[in-house]
Amino acid sequence: MSIRNAFYAQSGGVTAVINASACGVIETARQHPDKIGRVYAGNNGIIGALQEDMFDTSLESEATIAALKHTPSAAFGSCRYKLKSLGQNRAEYERLIDVFSAHDIGYFFYNGGGDSQDTANKVSQMSQQKGYPITCIGVPKTIDNDLPFTDCCPGFGSVAKYVAISTREIGLDVRAMQQSSTKVFVFEVMGRHAGWIAGAAGLAKEQPEDAPHLIVFPELPLDKAELIAAVEKKVSEVGYCVIVASEGARYQDGEFVADAGGTDAFGHVQLGGVAPALAAFIKQSTGYKCHWAVADYLQRSAGHIASATDREQAYAVGKAAVEFALAGENAIMPIIVRESVDPYSWSIGKAKLGDVANIEQPMPRHFITDDGYGLSEAGKAQLLPLIQGESYPPYRQGLPDYVRLKGVKVAAKLGEFSID
Amino acid sequence: MSIRNAFYAQSGGVTAVINASACGVIETARQHPDKIGRVYAGNNGIIGALQEDMFDTSLESEATIAALKHTPSAAFGSCRYKLKSLGQNRAEYERLIDVFSAHDIGYFFYNGGGDSQDTANKVSQMSQQKGYPITCIGVPKTIDNDLPFTDCCPGFGSVAKYVAISTREIGLDVRAMQQSSTKVFVFEVMGRHAGWIAGAAGLAKEQPEDAPHLIVFPELPLDKAELIAAVEKKVSEVGYCVIVASEGARYQDGEFVADAGGTDAFGHVQLGGVAPALAAFIKQSTGYKCHWAVADYLQRSAGHIASATDREQAYAVGKAAVEFALAGENAIMPIIVRESVDPYSWSIGKAKLGDVANIEQPMPRHFITDDGYGLSEAGKAQLLPLIQGESYPPYRQGLPDYVRLKGVKVAAKLGEFSID
Repeated sequence: MSIRNAFYAQSGGVTAVINASACGVIETARQHPDKIGRVYAGNNGIIGALQEDMFDTSLESEATIAALKHTPSAAFGSCRYKLKSLGQNRAEYERLIDVFSAHDIGYFFYNGGGDSQDTANKVSQMSQQKGYPITCIGVPKTIDNDLPFTDCCPGFGSVAKYVAISTREIGLDVRAMQQSSTKVFVFEVMGRHAGWIAGAAGLAKEQPEDAPHLIVFPELPLDKAELIAAVEKKVSEVGYCVIVASEGARYQDGEFVADAGGTDAFGHVQLGGVAPALAAFIKQSTGYKCHWAVADYLQRSAGHIASATDREQAYAVGKAAVEFALAGENAIMPIIVRESVDPYSWSIGKAKLGDVANIEQPMPRHFITDDGYGLSEAGKAQLLPLIQGESYPPYRQGLPDYVRLKGVKVAAKLGEFSID
Repeated sequence: MSIRNAFYAQSGGVTAVINASACGVIETARQHPDKIGRVYAGNNGIIGALQEDMFDTSLESEATIAALKHTPSAAFGSCRYKLKSLGQNRAEYERLIDVFSAHDIGYFFYNGGGDSQDTANKVSQMSQQKGYPITCIGVPKTIDNDLPFTDCCPGFGSVAKYVAISTREIGLDVRAMQQSSTKVFVFEVMGRHAGWIAGAAGLAKEQPEDAPHLIVFPELPLDKAELIAAVEKKVSEVGYCVIVASEGARYQDGEFVADAGGTDAFGHVQLGGVAPALAAFIKQSTGYKCHWAVADYLQRSAGHIASATDREQAYAVGKAAVEFALAGENAIMPIIVRESVDPYSWSIGKAKLGDVANIEQPMPRHFITDDGYGLSEAGKAQLLPLIQGESYPPYRQGLPDYVRLKGVKVAAKLGEFSID
């Protein structure tokens, strides 16, 4: 087995722990200098490969690579770019081969969600069709927790922890204010197609009176009259009501709640915002003083309170990706296998890229309580292990000391290439 | 000096550390059983006194009281309720005297911002006019950091830390996404009248290219054309632009940015939202993909990442309030005095309630950079010490283990009383 270089890239929305996977890939590759030469990281995902725009990670110190483990977001830049099929854009694939060939790249590690696994799978197919030997391993990552086969997706556990903590803190806040001020709070979280993240808020609830009082899942259409009745019931019972709503919440008529926000001063439809739209609707219907928050990117980049379990798993799938490649595996993705629930234990398994690509794993209905507004005991049993442990970054001057790369680029050998 | 009971209450918007002040008051009072009997805590601030609705903190264990130190929000409930002047609502003051007298309350500790110090001052005046002896000490608290005399306000340092950390994390996120996705991010923070909180975001900036790129202060009217030009300049220079905007931001014509959000589907003006309004305006003007977040209560109840300095100061003013009272002081508020900058050191001083009440301390112009969009070096020197140290709560099952009080009420001795 000759020594060949590796290409690693990050794709899609970032997470608090995707750099831990990068750390796993790079540190493990460094342990095998007899097989893997340098690890080149794409600047902004696959776009970096297409544009021959790559960082030479071999020029980063051990300390820098180790510090990736506690640094959120995608240190090498990410992208929202999906390769078309071979038939639709042959030039892109030929370019990839040219770049890989020019830099003697024999390993392709692509770190992302469903779309990214599809990209990795296409690169693998291209490799066979073009007769260019390259080992393609997907590295799972997505806060949406919607990849199939794996017990959970690295990145999700940390969002779940952030959302559960924030929900508990909001609950304490509104409870203190409800007598003479805010009675209803709407907290909007991510997860357009699946309620995993909204559901994780339910982990904050230990007693019946605790927040969250109502979770709005994207899977279950929202009945306006029922919602108002539920809010009024909670306020009469507990004194206040904390609602956690998925950004993908929609009404029974199919309209997204976020679209109900109306138009801005220029007559344009407002940029999304389930929380302000729901808060306005509830205030208008009940008269209660409402507050709301939209966490958006805060929730997925919250390296300051990442789940230790999530970070370990993110590192492990990066490490396993390299080990699988060196063991002769190809066109697969490492997955998390739940070995036991109590105590929680897990191991690394694998799934074929062809089986993984473009399949979304929805949240099962039985993870939601019968009334449609809460996380069931089964859902809690599934999610609670994923938020265990606090993986704190080091601090400097009162702020997280996130790593800065030297970021030395690999010298280009080819001409420029324009992407669509 | 006979043994008399104490009344303690929490007022106004909650913070991550106001319960640390409660802990300071109660623990210190317990050290002086020869002078202070029981500490009764008002249920929902002064309303609890008016309604004779008080918790008997003497029935809470030492461990519970100690755990207040790391528990955010107001454990005894807060209120937004301002006593009118003696002339305007004499019945309220007479009721307070009746309640204090019925429960032999000789000490009044009121924990809040400017309005609350005004309340404490009025109670003190009432005490003199009515001939009912009660020692009144204010305990400073406000995330707005706008109390006079004190170097900073307990509660502010933790919000500042949360906002600076979140800004750093958002910056890393958008930097990773900017090539093919989000180029502009708007993060809305609290501080309607003063830019202290928005300014704290500037602590995250170490290099010129770091977020935040633009801070929108409530003190400086926003020129729409200038803002768009500044955003486009930052995107061309750095590739992306992170904006931190105060909820109190307003345009040059005086219109609040939050009011520019237009109307909802029912034709009602939307509940505030500087971030969505600014993001919509920027997207419409530049075409850049924008994301936004509104932290709202998340920022002030973030006990999971409170500033250790802030928590120590919050405890210290609670402790000092009791010690001042026992030393014969009256109608004062403990303050934080900055003794030195590097290394930062502080001590406890005092200010007269009559001087403190209803005075807002604005953010000085020289704490803002000349261009109006950043935190100056002077501002940084003022704020950086306040976010030092990470005061983590204990965790249980992956979530902060915030205290639950037994919450035993003091038996009422008087009839009911209705407040306005």
